[in-house]
Amino acid sequence: MLYSSLENPKIKELKKLKTKKYRDILGKFIIEGEHLINEAYNLGYLEEIYALEDYQCDLDVKVNYVTKEVLKYITDLETPTIIGVAKKMEEKDIGDKLVILDDIQDPGNLGTIIRSSVAFNIDTIVLSNNSVDLYNDKVIRASQGMIFKINIIRKDIIPFISKVKNEYHIYGTKVNGGNSLKKIEKQKKFAIIMGNEGKGMSSDLDNLCDEFIYIDMNKECESLNVGVATSIILYELDK
Amino acid sequence: MLYSSLENPKIKELKKLKTKKYRDILGKFIIEGEHLINEAYNLGYLEEIYALEDYQCDLDVKVNYVTKEVLKYITDLETPTIIGVAKKMEEKDIGDKLVILDDIQDPGNLGTIIRSSVAFNIDTIVLSNNSVDLYNDKVIRASQGMIFKINIIRKDIIPFISKVKNEYHIYGTKVNGGNSLKKIEKQKKFAIIMGNEGKGMSSDLDNLCDEFIYIDMNKECESLNVGVATSIILYELDK
Repeated sequence: MLYSSLENPKIKELKKLKTKKYRDILGKFIIEGEHLINEAYNLGYLEEIYALEDYQCDLDVKVNYVTKEVLKYITDLETPTIIGVAKKMEEKDIGDKLVILDDIQDPGNLGTIIRSSVAFNIDTIVLSNNSVDLYNDKVIRASQGMIFKINIIRKDIIPFISKVKNEYHIYGTKVNGGNSLKKIEKQKKFAIIMGNEGKGMSSDLDNLCDEFIYIDMNKECESLNVGVATSIILYELDK
Repeated sequence: MLYSSLENPKIKELKKLKTKKYRDILGKFIIEGEHLINEAYNLGYLEEIYALEDYQCDLDVKVNYVTKEVLKYITDLETPTIIGVAKKMEEKDIGDKLVILDDIQDPGNLGTIIRSSVAFNIDTIVLSNNSVDLYNDKVIRASQGMIFKINIIRKDIIPFISKVKNEYHIYGTKVNGGNSLKKIEKQKKFAIIMGNEGKGMSSDLDNLCDEFIYIDMNKECESLNVGVATSIILYELDK
């Protein structure tokens, strides 16, 4: 069967997955491109595929054939060829190395942080309740397929940090103040808190931190992009 | 005078500055927001301002009053309040520390690299001829006002590198191969070549490099975002 109508109920339901509300209700999300689809398949998260009629599928999964018009209706990509529907990932145990994101808003930044967290051996990313939705298509695109390779959980972060504080060294981040990243002592179990793009880390978290760190930089530059700052800190702590 | 018509010749000319072609012809570009406008003004690049009628301007510059509709027509911002027209910056002497960008395409990545280059004391960014336009609005937004704080030049990079090679240590970057960033010897005069998002550094540049460097990372992650990779390298070299 070839789906060609944007009014088809199945296509309308697929389109709904563009909104956080329906992703939450259905527990599913959309992934774009073969690379991510293969990752999702290998890890058991892939539910079905929507592809153009001439697509040859090697995977043991339901394929729905659609017109170009339907694919373009579902994704923001210029020349989409295949999309998949995946189940949301389960939350797992947190491990030793954590990144805690205090209300990150930009999907590109979250995607970048996911990618760099995998690169530098972070076990778990903890999203505060007001952070951008992990399953937003721009997050997934910027993460370059890394969303399936790291544990990502959503928490009310004040009680979360309070609970883990005894076991983990908690690094807070400030643009200035605290210890230079270049000189900090490495810890076996740690959590790094990174703040919101505009406001930085909430001062409500200050007294939960064991140590504040900053990145030395030229005074002409007030701050770094939060995805960049996180990546530099993770690079340094992974040495 | 209040400009309210999108058909007014002055507004139509302003709109043309959204395209690289007219930015090149007119030698001007659009900047958004007070922060950048102040930077441009202080450095002598600001030519005029377009603002809403109730805007109080402290700067000694021509202010054109426009309606909200006109501002929204010119910028992609949700709630624009002020934009400026600035002259393009002159190219200056290159200094000791260079970043060379081999066909960077994504404006957000270029903006990030500009911001991090200022943070980590790079003197000059060299854009290859096929790199994204510096004066693209997304580049300027992502650079967070840093475009005026660093020398940025456009060159045919093969002859450029050939010419400076005797004086500068040329670092090439590869995902793997070469020396780990953690272990490289710092050089007084250097140039780092960063490659295109999809293809990496062109192999045509290989024999112009004195040394290749890579960033150690978990094998699960194939590569980092080029803005992130550049920032980590610059952080390390600035130590």
